[in-house]
Amino acid sequence: MRKFLLMMVVFLIGIACEEGEILDVEDGDTLDEDELLHNAQQIFGALPDVMPGSENDTPARVTLGERLFHETALSINDTQSCASCHSVTAGSAGVDNLQFSPGAEGQNGTRNSPTVLNAGFQFAQFWDGRSPHLQDQAKGPILNPVEMGMPDEQTVIDKIAAMADYPQLFAAAFPQSNPPITYDNLAEAIAAFERTLVSNARFDDYVNGDQAALSAEEKQGLKAFIDIGCASCHDSPIFGGNGFKKMGRYSMYANGTDYGRFEVTAVDSDKFVFKTSPLRNIALTHPYFHDGSANTLAAAVTQMASLQLGVTLTTDQLNAMLLFLDALSDKQLAQ
Amino acid sequence: MRKFLLMMVVFLIGIACEEGEILDVEDGDTLDEDELLHNAQQIFGALPDVMPGSENDTPARVTLGERLFHETALSINDTQSCASCHSVTAGSAGVDNLQFSPGAEGQNGTRNSPTVLNAGFQFAQFWDGRSPHLQDQAKGPILNPVEMGMPDEQTVIDKIAAMADYPQLFAAAFPQSNPPITYDNLAEAIAAFERTLVSNARFDDYVNGDQAALSAEEKQGLKAFIDIGCASCHDSPIFGGNGFKKMGRYSMYANGTDYGRFEVTAVDSDKFVFKTSPLRNIALTHPYFHDGSANTLAAAVTQMASLQLGVTLTTDQLNAMLLFLDALSDKQLAQ
Repeated sequence: MRKFLLMMVVFLIGIACEEGEILDVEDGDTLDEDELLHNAQQIFGALPDVMPGSENDTPARVTLGERLFHETALSINDTQSCASCHSVTAGSAGVDNLQFSPGAEGQNGTRNSPTVLNAGFQFAQFWDGRSPHLQDQAKGPILNPVEMGMPDEQTVIDKIAAMADYPQLFAAAFPQSNPPITYDNLAEAIAAFERTLVSNARFDDYVNGDQAALSAEEKQGLKAFIDIGCASCHDSPIFGGNGFKKMGRYSMYANGTDYGRFEVTAVDSDKFVFKTSPLRNIALTHPYFHDGSANTLAAAVTQMASLQLGVTLTTDQLNAMLLFLDALSDKQLAQ
Repeated sequence: MRKFLLMMVVFLIGIACEEGEILDVEDGDTLDEDELLHNAQQIFGALPDVMPGSENDTPARVTLGERLFHETALSINDTQSCASCHSVTAGSAGVDNLQFSPGAEGQNGTRNSPTVLNAGFQFAQFWDGRSPHLQDQAKGPILNPVEMGMPDEQTVIDKIAAMADYPQLFAAAFPQSNPPITYDNLAEAIAAFERTLVSNARFDDYVNGDQAALSAEEKQGLKAFIDIGCASCHDSPIFGGNGFKKMGRYSMYANGTDYGRFEVTAVDSDKFVFKTSPLRNIALTHPYFHDGSANTLAAAVTQMASLQLGVTLTTDQLNAMLLFLDALSDKQLAQ
C-alpha cells in the first residue's frame, strides 16, 4: 500500500507537470529559464528605440510638439490640453486615471482615456482603431465637442498663429512648409513629441538577455501569462495593440453597451470588438477596459481570463501575473 | 496489483481528459456539442451579409466594378486583369493557385496572391496590411511595375475613357461625380464588386445553430482548432484577417527572408510580422503562406502549429482539423 501511495504521488505530480504553470507558480524548480527567455524573445521582444514614422522628427519639431501637447489654447475655453487627459509629467503614466475624462466644457467622454506612452507602436489608434496613426489621432480630440471642443481646423490655426512664439516655432519645425502653421503640421508636431514617449522597463533588460532583471516570481508570472493564453493577444513588444478582438470571447461581457468597432464598420460581427490593449505600464493606468469599469488590475486580469480564455485563475496564477505585469512599467515610473 | 493497474488506467484517462482534444479526437463521446457551438458562436460567428463600406454600392456600381475587375486594358499590354491572379469564375476561389503570380510582362510578384473572396472583411489589405481597405488596395496592382504595370493614374483613366461603354457605365455608377471617370471611382467600383464576394459555407449554417451542418469528425476538428490555440489568432467570422502576428512565434521561420510589416513601419519588432490570414476557403487556396512555400494544407497546418504554438500535432488532430477546414469552403466551391 505504501508503494501504491508513492506511485499516486508520482502520478499526481505528473498531472500537475502536464498543466505546467500551476506547479511552476507553486514551485519554481520546474521552470526552464532558458526556454522561457527564448519564448519571451520570440513572442514579445524588446521595445525598439524608434517609433514608426519618426524619420523626420527633428528636435525643433519635437520641441514644438511638446509645447502643443500642453497647450490649453487648443481647447474652446483655454482650459484643456492633450496633457489634461494624458499626463506625462513626472510620475504620470500618460493617463488621468479617471474612468472617463471630462472635456473642456465638463461633459464626459464615453471611453477610458488610454495612455499616450508607447502609443505610436500600435497598429491603429483609439479603442476602435478608427485612426491609422498618431498624427491622424491628434486631430480628433481638439475638434471633438465633448473633448477640447474647438469648432473647426481653421479656428485652431488662426488662434495658434496669433499667439507669440508659435509662428517662429512652426517655421523652425517645418522649414519646407508654406505656410508653416497648418492643422496637418500641428498634428504632426504633436505626433513627433508622442513618438519620443518610449518605455524602458525591467522587462526590456530581461528580454535583452539579463535573467537577473526579473525575479523568480515574476518569471512564474510571465510563464503563466504565456501558458494560460494571455500572450496570444497581448504579444509584440507592447503586449497588444496589434489587432482586434471581441470583448467577451467565451462569454458575453456583462457591461456590453458599447459596440466598439461596429461603430466604424457597421458590420454585425464587429459588435463588441475592440483593439487589444497594449499592457506597457498597465499597473499604473487604472481603471481598466474601454469603459474603465475595472478598478484594479487584479479585477481586470481575472475578468479577462474568464471572458477571453474561459479560464478561472488560481490565486497563485493571478498573483504571479500581477507581479510580472509590474515589470512592464517604465523604470522611471515604477514604484 | 490488479487494483493498482486499474488505478493506473483511471489516472491515465484522467491525464488524457485534462488535455481535452486528444481524447476527443479519438473518442467523440466526450465532446459537449452545446458548449462547442456556444464557443464557436462567441469566437467566430456567422459571416455577415454586408461588407464594411458597402452603403453606396448600387447595382450600377457593382456592374461596372465586375467589368473593371475583368478588364485587361488595366494592364500595360492588355494581357492582365485583376481576375488574372484572383479568379472568381465558376469553381475558382479568388486565387490563381500559383506560388507567385506572373505580372503583365512576365515578372513574378514576391508574395502569394491572396483570395479576393471575403477580402473586404479584413481589417487591412495586403500581407503586410499596408492598405486600409479594398478601394485603396485596388489602386496598387494596376500601377505596380511587376504586376499590371500601368505608368500612372492619368494614363489608366485616359485609356478607360477612350473605350466604348465606360463613359456611360461610370456616369451611371457615379451620378454625383464630374467627371465620373477618375482613378478613385475606378478603384471604388472594383471595391464595390469585391464587396459582393461574400462566402456561404456549411460552417455558417452550423454557427447559426444547425448542429447537423457539421459531421462529428468536423466538430472534433473545430474543437481541436480552438483547444490547440489556432483560434487565438484565426478568429472572427473570417477566421483571421484582424491583426498582425510574427511568422515564427515559438521558433524562427526557416524561410524568413521577407521582413513583412517591417517594410511598412521600419520598426525592428515588425520584422517577419504579417497580417493573420483569414481561413475561409483555405482548402481551395493552396499554396500557403506569404511566400507560397507550403504546397498542401496539411503541411501548412502542421507548420503553423509548430511555429506559432510550439505544438506537434498528432495525426488524429491534424486530420480532424483538415476535415473541419473543408467546412469553411463556399458551398458553391466545395467539392
